Amino acid sequence: MDNYRFALDCNGGDYAPLEIVRGGILATKELGYKIYLVGDARKIEPILKKSGELNNPLLEVVDAPENVDFHEPPSTVLKKKNSSLFVGAKLVHQGRAEGLISAGNTGAVLAVGKFVVGAEEEVERPAIAVALPNPKGKTVLIDVGANVDSKPKHLVQFAVIGHTYAQEILGVSDPRVGLLSIGEEEGKGNELVKETYPLLKQTLLNFKGNAEGRDIYAGTFDVIVCDGFVGNVILKASESLGFAVVQMIKEEIKKSLLAKLGAVLLMPALNRFKKKADFAEYGGIPLLGAKKPVIITHGKANAKAIKNAIKVAGEFLNHDFNKKLVENIRKFIPQEVKV
Amino acid sequence: MDNYRFALDCNGGDYAPLEIVRGGILATKELGYKIYLVGDARKIEPILKKSGELNNPLLEVVDAPENVDFHEPPSTVLKKKNSSLFVGAKLVHQGRAEGLISAGNTGAVLAVGKFVVGAEEEVERPAIAVALPNPKGKTVLIDVGANVDSKPKHLVQFAVIGHTYAQEILGVSDPRVGLLSIGEEEGKGNELVKETYPLLKQTLLNFKGNAEGRDIYAGTFDVIVCDGFVGNVILKASESLGFAVVQMIKEEIKKSLLAKLGAVLLMPALNRFKKKADFAEYGGIPLLGAKKPVIITHGKANAKAIKNAIKVAGEFLNHDFNKKLVENIRKFIPQEVKV
Repeated sequence: MDNYRFALDCNGGDYAPLEIVRGGILATKELGYKIYLVGDARKIEPILKKSGELNNPLLEVVDAPENVDFHEPPSTVLKKKNSSLFVGAKLVHQGRAEGLISAGNTGAVLAVGKFVVGAEEEVERPAIAVALPNPKGKTVLIDVGANVDSKPKHLVQFAVIGHTYAQEILGVSDPRVGLLSIGEEEGKGNELVKETYPLLKQTLLNFKGNAEGRDIYAGTFDVIVCDGFVGNVILKASESLGFAVVQMIKEEIKKSLLAKLGAVLLMPALNRFKKKADFAEYGGIPLLGAKKPVIITHGKANAKAIKNAIKVAGEFLNHDFNKKLVENIRKFIPQEVKV
Repeated sequence: MDNYRFALDCNGGDYAPLEIVRGGILATKELGYKIYLVGDARKIEPILKKSGELNNPLLEVVDAPENVDFHEPPSTVLKKKNSSLFVGAKLVHQGRAEGLISAGNTGAVLAVGKFVVGAEEEVERPAIAVALPNPKGKTVLIDVGANVDSKPKHLVQFAVIGHTYAQEILGVSDPRVGLLSIGEEEGKGNELVKETYPLLKQTLLNFKGNAEGRDIYAGTFDVIVCDGFVGNVILKASESLGFAVVQMIKEEIKKSLLAKLGAVLLMPALNRFKKKADFAEYGGIPLLGAKKPVIITHGKANAKAIKNAIKVAGEFLNHDFNKKLVENIRKFIPQEVKV
């Protein structure tokens, strides 16, 4: 186990700072990493005291009282030099930490990820990938919101980033890459897709052609590439669909006593399923292509989710992800398709 | 009840012709409409004979043996003049039928809808709307695949079409209209959204600003407008997510006897939920803005789904939908925002 040091944003998130700090504590104990608790020291220290962790040598409080609220424009963070996000990203930029984890304003995390941590060599635009569950395993959807109005050559880079993620982190040996469209055949889709398809064919990726919306949760591709606008609305719609379905089923269950009993008996199975699909279990969403791991967790992240997100950051370093990514971009994309 | 006449494509769909013909028979009995069974007469007539419906005066077989397969490019249909879709659309164009219903190749249905049935006055681009369920009611997502690379003024028309659908067909008195984006505030989103937002503000619609992916199943808007590429991938991803979740839960249930019992007890509640969410229950997806109702059903449509789709076509006529739509386009969109 390496002695990684991570900057943890303790101001951002629905359950900040309590659950965030607790997640940081868990990470020191279970993973052995050093954690900079970046945030409002007056709030963080009482939590450490109450938890009996004031003398934990793996924890260091870095005072950064400002926060970028969920409703503030993301770019605000670049002006708020005392915000936990900016200070945390600076720790990474200065080489004092090897990664940044935040449950805060997603756009602001992206902004410091891109502009303070910075993009890795060869990477034109860092992108967010999410590994979505399906009955056979997982499918990486990339980009889910770091970039809008992407150009064809950006999508080609996203494809290589997604390939590298699937191979290095998820352990897929020869990831099947698809281009999200509204029809299977080459020539189907919007202008962006039509221009990207021939470029992807020229790469050394295992490109399987167009994927459709129905492929996202079907396990037919390991990586599905799309513009960040499209990926983001799909991701959020999926979350909201899951929530709505549970609520509607609950309404129906309420109407019958037998159904209530049935629900109780089903609970363990449902919990096992939930564990598979649960955000808290699989940690955070990485901004891939940044110089160091930047992990965005759900706003509702609890201590366990935070700890898992820190674990994910460690895995990227353990796998030498960025080195592999740079190699792949150089190797897989022919000169004429380069950005 | 009016004596509407509808053209029913009996060649297209996974369960064609049997379930389609049966759906047509149901429609004559339950709805009293005249149905042209357009398709391969050699296959349709034995079904009618076996069902004892050869002398049903509300059924008329129109021989059109050709079909546009699911894997053929949609434009094929415009060359296949003997295909059931082309012949059916022609019946509508000639005024012999008041609408077209098909479970066939969606792109081909759209093609005959746009080019044979044709667009209604004032409508630049017909669009497909789908009413998605949420815990509070339904949300109309438009466009879900009839148009890609839409321009801002097209989205404005889609908004008025969606408004009219929500008001006239779903009975929402003052539909809340949202523009699908990746952030709530004006200025968030891709170029298309940024240009469309100020135009929507100038209309007389009850425009509530940007909607996010999470609003689609949350009941926070009655109409959500997007480009057809985006809407299509969301719709298909949602379907596939529902399917994957059911499959993954089933896998977990199999592992325990108590869970199996629980599932049995829950069944009636789940079935009531399924009824709410089921495609077969709510019929088909309309191509709105065509001169006459064109209803696209799911490829897996059974007799009941077909009958319900025919019912939907009748409702559009009963509500004088197109008249209202033309009025709304004229009234709601100021001259400077017109296409």
